[in-house]
Amino acid sequence: MGILEFDGQCYLDGRASDPRELGWMHGAPPPADKRITFESDCFRTFPQIRWSLSHMRELTATVNVWRGPGAPSHFQRQDRTNEIDALAFTDANGRPRRFEEALFDTYADGMVVLHRGRIVYERYFGALEPQLPHACHSVTKSYAGTLAAAFVHEGVLDDRKAISHYLPELYGTAWEDATLRQVMDMQTGLAHTEIYADENSDLWAYSRACGFRPRLAGYDGPQTMCDYLATVRKEGAHGETLDYKTVNTEVMAWVISRVTGCSFAQLLQERLWAPLGCEEDAYVVVDSAGIPMAGGGLSTSLRDLARFGELMRCEGVWSGKQLIPASVVQDVQKGDHSAKLPDGYSYRSQWWVTHNELGAVEARGIHGQRLYIAPEAEMVAARFASHPVASADASDLITMPQMLALGLMLRG
Amino acid sequence: MGILEFDGQCYLDGRASDPRELGWMHGAPPPADKRITFESDCFRTFPQIRWSLSHMRELTATVNVWRGPGAPSHFQRQDRTNEIDALAFTDANGRPRRFEEALFDTYADGMVVLHRGRIVYERYFGALEPQLPHACHSVTKSYAGTLAAAFVHEGVLDDRKAISHYLPELYGTAWEDATLRQVMDMQTGLAHTEIYADENSDLWAYSRACGFRPRLAGYDGPQTMCDYLATVRKEGAHGETLDYKTVNTEVMAWVISRVTGCSFAQLLQERLWAPLGCEEDAYVVVDSAGIPMAGGGLSTSLRDLARFGELMRCEGVWSGKQLIPASVVQDVQKGDHSAKLPDGYSYRSQWWVTHNELGAVEARGIHGQRLYIAPEAEMVAARFASHPVASADASDLITMPQMLALGLMLRG
Repeated sequence: MGILEFDGQCYLDGRASDPRELGWMHGAPPPADKRITFESDCFRTFPQIRWSLSHMRELTATVNVWRGPGAPSHFQRQDRTNEIDALAFTDANGRPRRFEEALFDTYADGMVVLHRGRIVYERYFGALEPQLPHACHSVTKSYAGTLAAAFVHEGVLDDRKAISHYLPELYGTAWEDATLRQVMDMQTGLAHTEIYADENSDLWAYSRACGFRPRLAGYDGPQTMCDYLATVRKEGAHGETLDYKTVNTEVMAWVISRVTGCSFAQLLQERLWAPLGCEEDAYVVVDSAGIPMAGGGLSTSLRDLARFGELMRCEGVWSGKQLIPASVVQDVQKGDHSAKLPDGYSYRSQWWVTHNELGAVEARGIHGQRLYIAPEAEMVAARFASHPVASADASDLITMPQMLALGLMLRG
Repeated sequence: MGILEFDGQCYLDGRASDPRELGWMHGAPPPADKRITFESDCFRTFPQIRWSLSHMRELTATVNVWRGPGAPSHFQRQDRTNEIDALAFTDANGRPRRFEEALFDTYADGMVVLHRGRIVYERYFGALEPQLPHACHSVTKSYAGTLAAAFVHEGVLDDRKAISHYLPELYGTAWEDATLRQVMDMQTGLAHTEIYADENSDLWAYSRACGFRPRLAGYDGPQTMCDYLATVRKEGAHGETLDYKTVNTEVMAWVISRVTGCSFAQLLQERLWAPLGCEEDAYVVVDSAGIPMAGGGLSTSLRDLARFGELMRCEGVWSGKQLIPASVVQDVQKGDHSAKLPDGYSYRSQWWVTHNELGAVEARGIHGQRLYIAPEAEMVAARFASHPVASADASDLITMPQMLALGLMLRG
């Protein structure tokens, strides 16, 4: 049986942890040792996440993102599966790999690749099926950031204004004097930690408040996401450096909802799901006040994620209609040269900007979720995964060079 | 402001309790006094149910019933709204009423009427929209019973066999010596009460076990529906009289899942939602073992409920295909003459049989859910409601004569 090691811990590998083989949630009823529940918190541990990331709505409350009454938009196909599966590349540690095996080594649940808008590759693994929505985690942020940037472009929002201008209830909190743009670009100074491997990190208190993790008996913390956000205090300065904190996205989405009168789920439906002709309804985890979790709560089908990528690749145009202003997409692609990370990436409007030779931008989520848009290769790659390690570090070593190699191959 | 009285209690009437007017769950975030949460149990009290019955998935975990990848089936239309709204009839108390006002007086959330397969009437009220699934409550049972009867017809199940033949874990419980047919027809003797107005009724313990009501701090009862069912003991005899208990439906669905290897939600999808060309995905509330609640957990759009009614009216044929055996439908329509209630109804395979001049059968759920199929009038009427009183008694006085009058009008 295959074993992989990360951070000194051993895990079943991608094939050995196949959730169908392991029998999670199978049977009438499933045997006690094969059950995955929200209350036990085991839904977010490995290997259970290999099942649960394709079944989030069966674990907690969610709001629908309706695809609308129309027929789904159609993808043309030009199958290149064998060629792509055999693609050789070298990972960031200098180890030679092949595309298909790299998917198993990063616990992929599915991968769709578009080239010039056609599906050239589409495979599903583990518990995922084409119609099943899979947790996007922080890929959700890029949807929210794109909507925010579009509202700024349309003059509905002013990204130079302070958050407290829109949300007076946040006077006295970290966001009182942070501008909307600083929040959109995660350039805020917050007394709030986001370390996935640390059970005491503030991230988890936030997750409990917004219904993304169970609450222990006697829980007396914030009851809703908004209650939690009002507890965050400033530390350091705003506008100086990229400091990735999910709570920024929630504040950004809160501003959007306050000003538009629509929830994040409604806006996804009206601005993206219906006009893109998505195939399936998506959904978003909600807190106990019914607020969708814009920082990481979206689940969508893989092809519908690819549709969003294709919209971005085509500078906001879909079937001849400008759904997102071209200047919004161009602004994301330009990135933020003044705030590059050591790996060369920058972050703009909730997108990761690679600044690489393919002009690629990425939406990324924990456990290996990724939407990779490479205009110079006319490529969009959407992948879902359920990697044992939340932080992207473990799979990035493989996935980043893999995406680049794929783009270079397709560019030809 | 309009007030209605039931059982000596006063309630806002249908118009005054409009959930949009009352502002439930509106705002970013909704004000504390306008929130509806699962944990507080307020989601199932009036007037909050006027919102929550159209939003069950936002309150708890649910499993999807996929409509499949095809285009939805198309309804022809022949609008008779004005004529139907003006229809006069006399309620069971001898009071003259008109159709439209009777909908408000019974807290209707929506009503679709088909005549000869065409939509002649379609209206939505309160929080309901055409694409939104609404809680069916016990209308769910008639879906499950129809599937069970079809499996009996196909020889997959034998309705003369004892439940313990299929579910050995139920030896020593009420169901040990109950036959599948007795369970399907609710002719079991159970030490289990089902009184909606009594907070101490066993019904609520069952609801807490299967995730349909919140658990109080320190809850140490059964963790899942199956755990609960194993606690029910026999009282009296099986096969003697109709004694309506929802737990029978859960046992029936458990047998189906054990034998077919498919969950209730999967069977709804494969046998009904996809072949009927339903417009929207439906969903079912699940317990912490992921088991869908076949006794009352389904939410569906109103038009998709009407599709199921039309399938039954056409003796199981849809678009030229026999989806449910005709003999199954005929057996339901025949009812059970040996076990008629004082009001003339009998119960067969989880359907209410009126034995009236329209040959009508009904699926019925608490708070006013109803699917009324009247072959002699070539009519199907599907309605959702959020009546303050769970028991059907309050709205039946109006709705039963209303349905009959509508059928007689359409029969002409």
